[in-house]
Amino acid sequence: MPVPLYQARVLVSLRPSVLDPAGEATRAAAARLGIEGVRRLRIGKAIEVELEAPDPAAARERLERLGDRLLANPVIEDWRLELQDGSEEGR
Amino acid sequence: MPVPLYQARVLVSLRPSVLDPAGEATRAAAARLGIEGVRRLRIGKAIEVELEAPDPAAARERLERLGDRLLANPVIEDWRLELQDGSEEGR
Repeated sequence: MPVPLYQARVLVSLRPSVLDPAGEATRAAAARLGIEGVRRLRIGKAIEVELEAPDPAAARERLERLGDRLLANPVIEDWRLELQDGSEEGR
Repeated sequence: MPVPLYQARVLVSLRPSVLDPAGEATRAAAARLGIEGVRRLRIGKAIEVELEAPDPAAARERLERLGDRLLANPVIEDWRLELQDGSEEGR
């Protein structure tokens, strides 16, 4: 039997207390380009993952280890998981 | 009357034909850490935007200009818009 393949997205964002100079520069550039109304703009990462796992629980467990140990810097970043089955979680 | 505030996310990803060495290095590191089954891993950007606009159509139009002119490099990147009202689009 083939091992199921899961599609997931890990969203990594700067913690709210951490400044985002690149995002702020982009927000200012939007105003200069005449794009009005941008009140807040923060740049994070979206990591698209295809993962083989025997079941959704195993897929989630592997993705959590990936987020905690490789994708996010816990000192300045939060991350959130979107698994294709529609569930979400994060820390 | 206050101007409505919209929450949106712009997802910027490398075009499928463009190599992603950072993503590939992360995939290899996952295997070394004992995280099995990662078949594909691509690193993109997730830009969280708060935007004032008179109506959803105007919000979408501003976000499209933002994506086209500031957030993505059309030579190597695609982008997709997720507006809080649940609609999606991209190019």
